[in-house]
Amino acid sequence: MASDPDDPRIGDISEGAVLRAILARTAEASHTLLGPGDDAAVVAAPSASVVATTDTLVEGPDFRRAWSSGYDLGWKSAAVNLADIAAMGATPTALLVALAVPRDVRLSFVAAMADGFREACDALAPGCAVVGGDLTVSELMMIAVTALGDLGGHAAVTRSGASPGDVVALAGELGAAAAGLETLFGVFRDGSVPRPIDLRLLDETARLGVERQLRPRPPIMLGPVAADAGATALMDVSDGLGLDAGRIAGASDVTIDLDGTALDALAFGGDRVRALSGGEDHGLLATFPAETPVPTGFTRIGQVVARRSDGVLVDGEPVPAGGWDPYRDWDGVVSG
Amino acid sequence: MASDPDDPRIGDISEGAVLRAILARTAEASHTLLGPGDDAAVVAAPSASVVATTDTLVEGPDFRRAWSSGYDLGWKSAAVNLADIAAMGATPTALLVALAVPRDVRLSFVAAMADGFREACDALAPGCAVVGGDLTVSELMMIAVTALGDLGGHAAVTRSGASPGDVVALAGELGAAAAGLETLFGVFRDGSVPRPIDLRLLDETARLGVERQLRPRPPIMLGPVAADAGATALMDVSDGLGLDAGRIAGASDVTIDLDGTALDALAFGGDRVRALSGGEDHGLLATFPAETPVPTGFTRIGQVVARRSDGVLVDGEPVPAGGWDPYRDWDGVVSG
Repeated sequence: MASDPDDPRIGDISEGAVLRAILARTAEASHTLLGPGDDAAVVAAPSASVVATTDTLVEGPDFRRAWSSGYDLGWKSAAVNLADIAAMGATPTALLVALAVPRDVRLSFVAAMADGFREACDALAPGCAVVGGDLTVSELMMIAVTALGDLGGHAAVTRSGASPGDVVALAGELGAAAAGLETLFGVFRDGSVPRPIDLRLLDETARLGVERQLRPRPPIMLGPVAADAGATALMDVSDGLGLDAGRIAGASDVTIDLDGTALDALAFGGDRVRALSGGEDHGLLATFPAETPVPTGFTRIGQVVARRSDGVLVDGEPVPAGGWDPYRDWDGVVSG
Repeated sequence: MASDPDDPRIGDISEGAVLRAILARTAEASHTLLGPGDDAAVVAAPSASVVATTDTLVEGPDFRRAWSSGYDLGWKSAAVNLADIAAMGATPTALLVALAVPRDVRLSFVAAMADGFREACDALAPGCAVVGGDLTVSELMMIAVTALGDLGGHAAVTRSGASPGDVVALAGELGAAAAGLETLFGVFRDGSVPRPIDLRLLDETARLGVERQLRPRPPIMLGPVAADAGATALMDVSDGLGLDAGRIAGASDVTIDLDGTALDALAFGGDRVRALSGGEDHGLLATFPAETPVPTGFTRIGQVVARRSDGVLVDGEPVPAGGWDPYRDWDGVVSG
């Protein structure tokens, strides 16, 4: 790789120089009481409790640098963690980012990642910002993000509160990110396609899927809306609607009967199978009492019934289990 | 590696099976309102703010599996993050652990890591526990920990509040972990030494150093004690007293004049150079107003004076800068 004094490799400059470039791209936000620069940050927790979650993107099983820009990786790392906060009915307040970067990565890549974090927060969860982090050298790129959130005074909405008779509703997309992954594997795995990838090579539907795979847009602000509306159970759909609905069903000891017509209407490209098995959209799956109006932004997709042998049904019929287990499903390719 | 049905490789079992083994070793703790198993955890934040920090251990620059057991890695990952919470004057309330594990790692290694996390919390910060995490497959082992803490109603103690006339005091060890690292590099790099390492091969002082390197014991509970006593600045000594005292000096725009006799008395093995340059003990470095009695557990090691050209002096004389920058100093060895 050619030397470039304006865009040095991470391994050729000091940790302090990298951190300065990142911090210059970090915004103050309304919940930040003390931002980066000391031993720890201080974040407002007005409800006297804090919702906390962590999720990691690892080069290989979770992303490839040939497909994802630094900006994409920052955006996606933020979005998937913000979704886990929203999935408790909470409002995200802060992110902490532990970043492991190979020495040959350019400073511009890390700076773009910081832009992706900031812009994802601004777009999906205004008031939330990166308040701290850790930077280390590694042979493999890895982004571990912790998100914090506040419940606004109400109780956390877990997976275990659904009851027979409740309405099942979804906010967000269904199958778009999975369609994008199929496109990336199908089109861009071909070595003849120049890198980095050029989305203009795709038709509009395929391009939208790839955009959602690389930069998902979960409906973060609808998490607290669902909690305010009295949601009895709530989670984000990260591993596929079939698998994740089964988790609410299992935790609540109920069965979820999905409405095939509603699924077809919501499914990206009208593909019901992918809508049930495809993950990474990080939409919000909620159950509400039957008498509660489903809040704006959510669409009714089924109902909760008494527990049967299958946790999830579509129009009363079983659906096959499925979903992504990185230990079983990763093909072992780190970049390609 | 031989197959062992009682201790399978992580790559041969499901993510769920690994998580069950980890969760069986996770304790409930007094600040946990909702523990692992949902989209996010909920942790008490009685002061209506939360202190948060993240730090990563990466195989290669930060540890080698030939030197550290799973238990050691869990313990150390917990301890270094707890120290950053203590360094704000806060009491640790919760840890979140993002763990990336190669497929060939045994389940017993990960289970021992969970034991190390739990026992470090119990020993160093009772009431704190692992409340959430993330497990992913990776070619390289990486442990990214986020620690949360509560300020008990007082303000965070930053690095920037030291004033001329303040007393400088330290709680914890000085040079022990660095001495241990020297022993590991010196003795155990020799390929003739059988792995895993046998500490009984060492004399008592060398063994204590290695134990502190692998399982540091920072004085976590003295962080809130320092805050209650009116500390004007506080941090943990992770990169060496010389470098870290310089950080307080820089943030506070003062100079810290250390007392050579006091350093010699505290220095592990009486080695003042190592006491100034050696990191990873995670002792607490504090400044207190001159009229404040230094709290029990802290030892006076110097005083704050008006800013001079050097941020740190010993008996009025400059000390050379030093410390660990992983981008500059890592030798590139991942295991060995």
